[in-house]
Amino acid sequence: MTAYDFERSIVDIPDYPEPGVVFKDITPLIADAEGFSAVIEAIAGHFENAGITKVIGAEARGFMVGAPVAHRLGAGFVPARKPGKLPRETVSESYALEYGTDALEVHADAIGPDDVVLLVDDLVATGGTAVAQARLVERLGARLAGMGFLMELAFLDPRTAIAQATDAEVFSLVRVD
Amino acid sequence: MTAYDFERSIVDIPDYPEPGVVFKDITPLIADAEGFSAVIEAIAGHFENAGITKVIGAEARGFMVGAPVAHRLGAGFVPARKPGKLPRETVSESYALEYGTDALEVHADAIGPDDVVLLVDDLVATGGTAVAQARLVERLGARLAGMGFLMELAFLDPRTAIAQATDAEVFSLVRVD
Repeated sequence: MTAYDFERSIVDIPDYPEPGVVFKDITPLIADAEGFSAVIEAIAGHFENAGITKVIGAEARGFMVGAPVAHRLGAGFVPARKPGKLPRETVSESYALEYGTDALEVHADAIGPDDVVLLVDDLVATGGTAVAQARLVERLGARLAGMGFLMELAFLDPRTAIAQATDAEVFSLVRVD
Repeated sequence: MTAYDFERSIVDIPDYPEPGVVFKDITPLIADAEGFSAVIEAIAGHFENAGITKVIGAEARGFMVGAPVAHRLGAGFVPARKPGKLPRETVSESYALEYGTDALEVHADAIGPDDVVLLVDDLVATGGTAVAQARLVERLGARLAGMGFLMELAFLDPRTAIAQATDAEVFSLVRVD
């Protein structure tokens, strides 16, 4: 089996959403059956023997990668949502944006002390949403075993911020230097 | 194998998001490894021999069910997103809300004439977002082979609206009368 060339199917959008930023559009990769399968198998395969019981993923693109990884690992999927989207009791963690803050919430009963959790997202940039989710997992008493990303913007050094919050293993499929 | 009791893991939230409405919270079902697996296997299994090449799912809860079904069927996944979320050329279809309208968009190159498409969502209520997505698939020249829903609010009669727009087969796992 030849390795799939993930970068071939990720489209650079210059000056989006603002001048000077290059947006990485993963939708062509996800829409390609072979590419999508390769992404899910690579992330799930890496954590196959970690005893994962739950995968957590952030709204909305994190659902596209996290939910299939959860299914592939035989785990449950826990959505981390923007404030006000979940109907029952939640725990919430805020994180910094370029201007201001935002927050992610999970249902308070979605994860428990017996769970071994894998965080999955399409992209890690500064690491802010990953650290917020790591704190949510910790507050609910579970162990965060790892983080799996389709793409890591390594030039923003997310691993330093993540390492200060958790000792979970970080795995990225595509690294942008 | 005993059939999984899906309704056991769906939580009724009375008067949410507004008085008189009973919200159906599927997150406990998705977070349960056994329940999540049963949902994905049932929907994917139903369309296993339909030759599906792409699954379309609407932001955000549709991603949680649609993306794993796509992976399970060896298909690509196409997100239908709220306006302004996709960075390249899109096609857009609006649909009616109780007050006003909203729209869903897909990238114009995400689906083509050779595709056989399955629409997947967590919930079908009046059928508005399903019909909008059926029109998007049709405008991009592909065949919509089916629609698979975790839950159908049958008392709102979505099948009449859907049948006026497409002859795609409609399959629901849980029917609320």
